Amino acid sequence: MANDAIGIFDSGLGGLTTVKELNRILPMEDIIYFGDTGRVPYGTRSKDAIIKYAKQDIAFLKSFKVKMIIAACGTVSSVANFIGDSLPLPFIGIVKPCAIAAVKATKNGKIGVIGTAATIKSHAYLKEMNILKENLDIFEIACPLFVPLIESGIISPGDPVLLEVARRYLLELKEKNIDTLILGCTHYPIIMEAISSIMGENVNIINSGRETAIYAYEFLKNRGMLKKSDDHGKYLFYVSDTADGFESEASKFLNLNLEYKCKKIDIEQY
Amino acid sequence: MANDAIGIFDSGLGGLTTVKELNRILPMEDIIYFGDTGRVPYGTRSKDAIIKYAKQDIAFLKSFKVKMIIAACGTVSSVANFIGDSLPLPFIGIVKPCAIAAVKATKNGKIGVIGTAATIKSHAYLKEMNILKENLDIFEIACPLFVPLIESGIISPGDPVLLEVARRYLLELKEKNIDTLILGCTHYPIIMEAISSIMGENVNIINSGRETAIYAYEFLKNRGMLKKSDDHGKYLFYVSDTADGFESEASKFLNLNLEYKCKKIDIEQY
Repeated sequence: MANDAIGIFDSGLGGLTTVKELNRILPMEDIIYFGDTGRVPYGTRSKDAIIKYAKQDIAFLKSFKVKMIIAACGTVSSVANFIGDSLPLPFIGIVKPCAIAAVKATKNGKIGVIGTAATIKSHAYLKEMNILKENLDIFEIACPLFVPLIESGIISPGDPVLLEVARRYLLELKEKNIDTLILGCTHYPIIMEAISSIMGENVNIINSGRETAIYAYEFLKNRGMLKKSDDHGKYLFYVSDTADGFESEASKFLNLNLEYKCKKIDIEQY
Repeated sequence: MANDAIGIFDSGLGGLTTVKELNRILPMEDIIYFGDTGRVPYGTRSKDAIIKYAKQDIAFLKSFKVKMIIAACGTVSSVANFIGDSLPLPFIGIVKPCAIAAVKATKNGKIGVIGTAATIKSHAYLKEMNILKENLDIFEIACPLFVPLIESGIISPGDPVLLEVARRYLLELKEKNIDTLILGCTHYPIIMEAISSIMGENVNIINSGRETAIYAYEFLKNRGMLKKSDDHGKYLFYVSDTADGFESEASKFLNLNLEYKCKKIDIEQY
C-alpha cells in the first residue's frame, strides 16, 4: 500500500505545478499523472460536464494501484470535490490546502481568490475559509483567460498581453487592500511572477501547486503511508489527446532529469 | 428532400456566423445546429482528436432528416474535410468557399490566411487556392488566442487586450502588403471590425460565415434543392454542454426575432 503510486489528474498541464513540488519534497514517490488534454479547459464548462469528466479521470487512475488521488485541478476541487467522499482511498483537492495556508498567512483578514469561472461561481474557497476562521473579508475574481494564455505559452512575466489581462482581473483585488491571494487554479503558479508584479511584494501569494504537495506529504506521513525507498520514484504520464506536445511542454516545465513516457488513452471509455 | 433541414456544426458558437448569413439569404430553410461546447476549442487539438470529434458531430446531425451538412468550423474544414467524401449527402466546409472568394477578390495576388493552430498547420487554404490560381503569394498565421477571447466575450472593437493580441498576429501580414485576408475560422467574423482596423480599409476581408452561406445557397439552387415555402424556417440548436449559456449568447449574437429551443445532448454516444 505505502509503496503504491500517487495518482494525480488535471484538465491539462496545470497539475504539473503539483508534480513539480512533489518531486521536490517527496522524490521517492511514484506518480501516475493524467491530463485531460482532449477536453481542456474545464473552467468554462458546466457543473454537470465537470462532474462527468472528473469521474472518468478518477476511474482511469483507479485502474492502477494508487494509494491516493489528487485532483490537482482548481475547477474539479471546487465543483466536484464531493466525488472523493465515496472513494475507497484518500482523495485530496487543492481547495483545503490553499484555504489553510491563506488563513494562516493573512494578517489583516483580507484575502483574494482567483480561479476559473466555474471555481469562482462555486464559492468553494470562500466556504472553506469561513469554516476555518470568522470575520474574514474574502474577494473572489474569475480569470477565464489565464488558462488559455498559459496553454498558448504566453507566460513571460513582462508579456504585454499577459500583463494587460492580469491587470484587468487583479486591480480590483489590489484596491481591496488584500494581503493574501490564493492562486485557485494549478495553472496560475506558472504566471506567479506576473501576478506578483501587479499585486506588489507585500501580498502573500498562495501557490496552489506547492500547498497541495505539502498537504499530501503531511497526510501520507501522518498515516505511515510514505514510500520507503532511496531511489527516485517512477513517473508515468497519460493524456487524452496526442502525447507529442505534452511531452515537450512537461519536460520544459518540470525540468526533471528523469526518463519518463507519456501515452495517449481514450478517456471516454472510463 | 428539398424540404429537409440543413445540418450545421461547429466546436462552439463560431458557426452561428454562418447561421446568421443563412438567415439573411435563405430565411425559409430549416436549420439544425450542433455546437460541441463540451469540447470546444478544436483548434488546439491533434488531427486524430479533431477527426474523431467531427465524425461524432456528423453522426449526430445524420440522425435527423437533413439534405446537407455544413462544417461551419475552420478547423474541421481544414483537417477533416475528407470525412465528407464518404457521406451519402452533400457536405460543405468553409475552406473552398473562402478560397474562391479570396482568389476572386485579390488584385496583387498577396493573400493572408488566419486560423487556429490546427488549420494553419494543415495548409488547407493554401492548397485550395493554389489549385484555383497560379503564382499567388500566400501568408498563413495561426491565431490560437482569438477563439478563447471571443468565447470569453472580449469582442469589443476597441478592447485593448483584443487589439494587442490582434496586432501581435496581424502586423506580420500587414508588412507583407497583402490585399486580401481570409478569416479562416467562423469565430473570427465576430471580431472583424478589430481585425479590419489593424489591417486598414484597403484590405479585403473574406468573411467565412458569409462566404459559406452564399456557397451553400448556390449549391442548393443549382441542384433544385432549395426549400419551397413562404414561412420562415424552424431552427433547432443542440449543444454538448449546458444549454443555458449558449441560448443567451446565441440570441444576442443572432439577433433573430425567432422562437427556438436549445437542448443538451451526449455527443459521446454518437
